[in-house]
Amino acid sequence: MDKKNILDAMQAHLDNLTKPRGSLGKLEEYCLKMAAIQGKAPPKIEKKGVYVFGGDHGIADEGVSLYPKEVSFQMAINMLSGGAGINVLAGSTGWELIVVDSGIDGDFPPDGELNPKNRFIRAKISRGSRNFYKEMAMTEDETEAAIGKGRELAEDAVKQGYNMVAVGDLGIGNTSTAAALLVAAGLDADAVIDRGTGIDDKQLAHKKRVIKEGVVNRRPVKNAYSILQEVGAPDLAMMTGFMLGLEGRGIACVIDGFPVSSAAYMAYMVNPKITDYLFAGHLSKVGGHKIVLSALGLSPIVSLDMHLGEGTGAVIGGFIVQLALACALNMAGFDSGDVSGKDIEEQKY
Amino acid sequence: MDKKNILDAMQAHLDNLTKPRGSLGKLEEYCLKMAAIQGKAPPKIEKKGVYVFGGDHGIADEGVSLYPKEVSFQMAINMLSGGAGINVLAGSTGWELIVVDSGIDGDFPPDGELNPKNRFIRAKISRGSRNFYKEMAMTEDETEAAIGKGRELAEDAVKQGYNMVAVGDLGIGNTSTAAALLVAAGLDADAVIDRGTGIDDKQLAHKKRVIKEGVVNRRPVKNAYSILQEVGAPDLAMMTGFMLGLEGRGIACVIDGFPVSSAAYMAYMVNPKITDYLFAGHLSKVGGHKIVLSALGLSPIVSLDMHLGEGTGAVIGGFIVQLALACALNMAGFDSGDVSGKDIEEQKY
Repeated sequence: MDKKNILDAMQAHLDNLTKPRGSLGKLEEYCLKMAAIQGKAPPKIEKKGVYVFGGDHGIADEGVSLYPKEVSFQMAINMLSGGAGINVLAGSTGWELIVVDSGIDGDFPPDGELNPKNRFIRAKISRGSRNFYKEMAMTEDETEAAIGKGRELAEDAVKQGYNMVAVGDLGIGNTSTAAALLVAAGLDADAVIDRGTGIDDKQLAHKKRVIKEGVVNRRPVKNAYSILQEVGAPDLAMMTGFMLGLEGRGIACVIDGFPVSSAAYMAYMVNPKITDYLFAGHLSKVGGHKIVLSALGLSPIVSLDMHLGEGTGAVIGGFIVQLALACALNMAGFDSGDVSGKDIEEQKY
Repeated sequence: MDKKNILDAMQAHLDNLTKPRGSLGKLEEYCLKMAAIQGKAPPKIEKKGVYVFGGDHGIADEGVSLYPKEVSFQMAINMLSGGAGINVLAGSTGWELIVVDSGIDGDFPPDGELNPKNRFIRAKISRGSRNFYKEMAMTEDETEAAIGKGRELAEDAVKQGYNMVAVGDLGIGNTSTAAALLVAAGLDADAVIDRGTGIDDKQLAHKKRVIKEGVVNRRPVKNAYSILQEVGAPDLAMMTGFMLGLEGRGIACVIDGFPVSSAAYMAYMVNPKITDYLFAGHLSKVGGHKIVLSALGLSPIVSLDMHLGEGTGAVIGGFIVQLALACALNMAGFDSGDVSGKDIEEQKY
């Protein structure tokens, strides 16, 4: 079936459910989008996986964050031992968790000693990005390798049988890198560079100056590959490759907060069709997030002022999409005979 | 412990979790509110029940809806056989479902023939409200009986061991009754009487006229009991009694859309402290819902343009509160030693 036929079939299915037409609101939109992604109506989610891409960021050396780089490695270890926010939220909403070392500046013990609670994928290309204020963030080879590794992970998602994946981030300084990507892409610097909750006016001014000047220093050509190489980082490039690699695989992808959304914007620059299979899991408290979601043309599913990263907002939003599909699959239809369809089809609240 | 000590203990617990302070956003507020409700930190939800109050509404005779009364009974039967939206959403998010006949204008078969998939509570006091445009909606006895039955159901919730309950509605015409309650209570009629999605300008004007004139015709004294008697209905009065009866029982109560929120407003008029244990599960698409939530001082957890009723928004919102509590209970703390608390406590995204 072509897309129009699938959407028509899905709409007819929704309108036959024992409820007033349209009364499931956005849940119905999510069903339609999932039907288009899977190419069938009604669609179904049987297995979901959240990939958390961890990496370090050289720009942290410029004092744009209040906290030291070491925390990235500590948080990754915490996540592998089951203690982070994403472990709890993914576990409570039926997601498998895959922790990806996409450039954390630390040495993970071998698997035997690590004994991770979740899957752990070692995809370190470097120990994080270089400081883009002073030099190119990645070499051309590193950039290609990171994007290529992301595409490989999309194949992994297919192999695992996921119908839906989520993308999370982990890494000190990644919001600064993410903002630099967007500034280099032409978005308004003052809108996308955010205070976060921890820095004061003076520190924000410093962060803005570092990012703006860093982008000017690098002068990337305005395409995603050049931008990622000049001011990006391996983790964000890997996410970009991952999202691009999902095209045409029938898998929905739920993005998390500001860093992941910025990587999505890079993927969107390469292929604007990616938003056909992206969901914005949530709107985070980070100021620039709204801007980049709007540039992607995506509306967030929930808005809970979270700003933890790790995919925590994405797994909640993705679970709500799954609830929508459960309604479509499991509610009674008027044609099952119990309820007078003729009466209730007219029913509008 | 007094409330301040509990909140301090809960805040300290949240700040010890391996995440930047405050980064779980509203999820942290929900943990604090639940700690105050349960009188302990961290709080826990082990069992949740959604009570759906079904009833008919005499005002439907004035043509304020596009659909016939019979649909209330049909939808209740559908819900008892597991086919309604709430069956799917409650089942997918761990809620037990209790269907309450609080005045549906239909004769349910005896239990042996009915074989309900969920608990069914027969609490019929009358076959719904009288038409408040023409006469008093309930007698004084009916009003008292409905409120009293609601209070009994609060005891049922305690007996069942629920830590959280949700309240849903079912019944043709209940949005008109709900709007009348609020107009009688002094809220702005033009703001709370909504078009819904099914009626045109002319029909909306008719609905507004019927409700406004109905309230004038009845001239209720401005207290909740008088308002419920003059322009209310047994289902909404039962919800009111249910919410009032939960005071001091350590049970959180998640309200659904416009009709349930209007009943909550009646309970609030009797006892403003009820909002201490209420959560607004969602913001529905019904226009007046925002007004009444704002009058209650509650912010909705999700906003998905749903307008199905049945508690469908409440169970999604309540599940998110449960996710918040799961984070507090199951995330690692800095004092567990894996992550450097000193470093990460400074971490702000």
